[in-house]
Amino acid sequence: MTNGKKELRLAIAGLGTVGAGVVTLLRKNADLLMARAGRPIRITAISARDRNKDRGVDLKGLTWYDDPIALATAPDIDVVVELIGGAEGAARMLVEASLANGRDVVTANKALIAIHGAHLSRLAASHGAALLFEASVAGGIPAIKLVREGLAADHMEEIGGLLNGTCNYILTKMGDSGEDFAQVLASAQKLGYAEADPSTDVDGWDAAHKLAILAGLAFGQPVKFSSIGVEGIRHIASYDHQFAREMGYRIKLLGMARRLDDSDEIEAWMRPCMVRHDTPIANVNGVFNAVKMRGRFSGPMLIEGRGAGAGPTASAVMADVMDLARGTALPVWGTAPKPERACVPQSTLSGAYYLRLLVRDKPGVMAEIASALRDERVSMRAMSQHSFVTYDDNMPSGDGASEPVAPLAIITHQTRESAMKNVVDRLSNMPEVLHHPVLMKIES
Amino acid sequence: MTNGKKELRLAIAGLGTVGAGVVTLLRKNADLLMARAGRPIRITAISARDRNKDRGVDLKGLTWYDDPIALATAPDIDVVVELIGGAEGAARMLVEASLANGRDVVTANKALIAIHGAHLSRLAASHGAALLFEASVAGGIPAIKLVREGLAADHMEEIGGLLNGTCNYILTKMGDSGEDFAQVLASAQKLGYAEADPSTDVDGWDAAHKLAILAGLAFGQPVKFSSIGVEGIRHIASYDHQFAREMGYRIKLLGMARRLDDSDEIEAWMRPCMVRHDTPIANVNGVFNAVKMRGRFSGPMLIEGRGAGAGPTASAVMADVMDLARGTALPVWGTAPKPERACVPQSTLSGAYYLRLLVRDKPGVMAEIASALRDERVSMRAMSQHSFVTYDDNMPSGDGASEPVAPLAIITHQTRESAMKNVVDRLSNMPEVLHHPVLMKIES
Repeated sequence: MTNGKKELRLAIAGLGTVGAGVVTLLRKNADLLMARAGRPIRITAISARDRNKDRGVDLKGLTWYDDPIALATAPDIDVVVELIGGAEGAARMLVEASLANGRDVVTANKALIAIHGAHLSRLAASHGAALLFEASVAGGIPAIKLVREGLAADHMEEIGGLLNGTCNYILTKMGDSGEDFAQVLASAQKLGYAEADPSTDVDGWDAAHKLAILAGLAFGQPVKFSSIGVEGIRHIASYDHQFAREMGYRIKLLGMARRLDDSDEIEAWMRPCMVRHDTPIANVNGVFNAVKMRGRFSGPMLIEGRGAGAGPTASAVMADVMDLARGTALPVWGTAPKPERACVPQSTLSGAYYLRLLVRDKPGVMAEIASALRDERVSMRAMSQHSFVTYDDNMPSGDGASEPVAPLAIITHQTRESAMKNVVDRLSNMPEVLHHPVLMKIES
Repeated sequence: MTNGKKELRLAIAGLGTVGAGVVTLLRKNADLLMARAGRPIRITAISARDRNKDRGVDLKGLTWYDDPIALATAPDIDVVVELIGGAEGAARMLVEASLANGRDVVTANKALIAIHGAHLSRLAASHGAALLFEASVAGGIPAIKLVREGLAADHMEEIGGLLNGTCNYILTKMGDSGEDFAQVLASAQKLGYAEADPSTDVDGWDAAHKLAILAGLAFGQPVKFSSIGVEGIRHIASYDHQFAREMGYRIKLLGMARRLDDSDEIEAWMRPCMVRHDTPIANVNGVFNAVKMRGRFSGPMLIEGRGAGAGPTASAVMADVMDLARGTALPVWGTAPKPERACVPQSTLSGAYYLRLLVRDKPGVMAEIASALRDERVSMRAMSQHSFVTYDDNMPSGDGASEPVAPLAIITHQTRESAMKNVVDRLSNMPEVLHHPVLMKIES
């Protein structure tokens, strides 16, 4: 670990908006950082794809490297700041080579830590290097330090939250405007809130990477990423928001990792959920992120703030650099490295659920639905059917093209998730049920 | 500072609910603490008022001291945990003596840090001892570490929030039930949410102490406590809550410390405020606390959780102990000690205001009020008058004892606080105005 009162020298790999933000923050806050760290912090080296691109920041006096991997061993560098992104390729090679060389690494790369965190934490420990990644989760919200340091003495019971600003923006807008997913996605893309290829965000992967990192920290052991249940928001329709509102809920892409009662096992999933409209998490709207947690002693806590953007992410990257400058960096998971562990399969969970179908107006449809629930011993708490709509262009074309269909929603009492999956499988095979039924967990 | 891999030995001074909570947490979470700290943590010594009182925790094997001050110099102690409370007396003597002896101190004592923080930070620095106080602000919410570590690279523009659970409970209950202050206070006392002598809480002192500490951390320099404007909630009536609801607000005891534009000066106050009903802070209810902050790079952030209680406070105390065990403790204000600075006087501030009067039904009353506002160049944004009520027993007895009076509320546009004070002074001298007018800031 780096320490002492001499200058701390940084190499920045990747000069996108976050990289440029780090350069700007370091220049604007130089006096403040010096006062708090007790030593100067300076960027000495840079690597990015295009040397001639104008990024609005002056790069004079910095050593330029065409090959980012060279930063792992180049001279006059104490800390490598990896802002390239991606779980493989240059980002992974740079981080591995730097740690193997005993060089401290700060990264904003959630995919890398979520997928290779167990391996990288061993590499860091065995070479006495620090690996810090505050910026990988929830942008400017210091969620990682909050868990690893602020709640260091407490057993965490659960952690999670709203971890993707694009999804939260889309779901908030759909709920407020009544527009459907495709319309809102298009407007989000225009505003710069969604990428041209939105799949990393809207299919839940970005949020799930962050959840894996939070779970690893909260429970002191990396989580096997492939064991986390991940579901995106593409299939949520405007009627789901109408039903939600009518029944006192809001729809959120929510992820939670939880310690199971009386066991050392954990559940972890990222999926669209129904949350009570009057809970704090239901009222975190637009591009904001929220991290929710509960400690055995500290109780419930919620923190909300900006989950992305150059400023918040640069602030998080530099907070890690400050830990290195002050000599207060901690091990990756807050303890000595441990092997990955898998979460329990989602089919073993239980809860209350929202089930939404789009049904044809035929005699006996309701009886068939009721039988499917009864056969799985699922009991209904509430049901609502909206008026029939014409099966139009927004729905997949087929034999029912001009037939009236109705959305129908059911809220269940507490039941097993496996029972709900069986109900969904059975109903999706009924000719009177159009599309695949939508199943959402109800989270309080 | 304490470091190394050997056992960390604690002395606990004060065995109230928090002290007993620390003993319980340390025993229940021993394995976790050991794994995270990399060394054992053990209580070796205890001091409290009554040795024979049953506190539900086993004190066998611990050295008992009748005089808490002895812990400052007694053998086999690395860290003194001060849980006696109070800005003077035994608590102050113990902390000063411990620091002067180079012994690390962890405390939950907000009054001590708010009032003597500047002096104590110099004492700690000059003797190479750590002084940590996470538990002094907002119980289980790690607000101090969040600012000092999580936002270490950012300039804070503002910090504050809802820092007293008793007041937040009383105001929430008044707003929900329509009951008046005295009724709700009595029920809060029955539930254990308010002390028999509630003045430290309801007059705003406890919350102001916490605000002073947050401001010192956010701006890197201790704040002169006596320069903070402090106002409690005793004078808030049930009609104020009715007006608030009608006009789209909620009433909260809110404190904020803010850097003034283009200057190094700060404002800081703790006072009942009107907040928009749809803001996150308006929806933090009951005994919950919330810390609100805004960084230049990190943007706005809000964290809510349990502000008091044995569990949350013990978790915060032990998070500080973990910093000492891990060797990652930072200086008191995050930088080298600086002298106290005063906030700007409240009379120099500006904002929008809520002004509520109780007026007699006499001709010309409204004209007189309007003139008072006009003469101070205050412009009204909204006004509401409720129906006349009988001047009853809940109001101070006087000459108007059976006369009808009406509550009247005015919301102003942006104006100077000094102008509002002049308006209040003038109106409070009018014979048609009963009681002292109520003035509240409107905070967005």
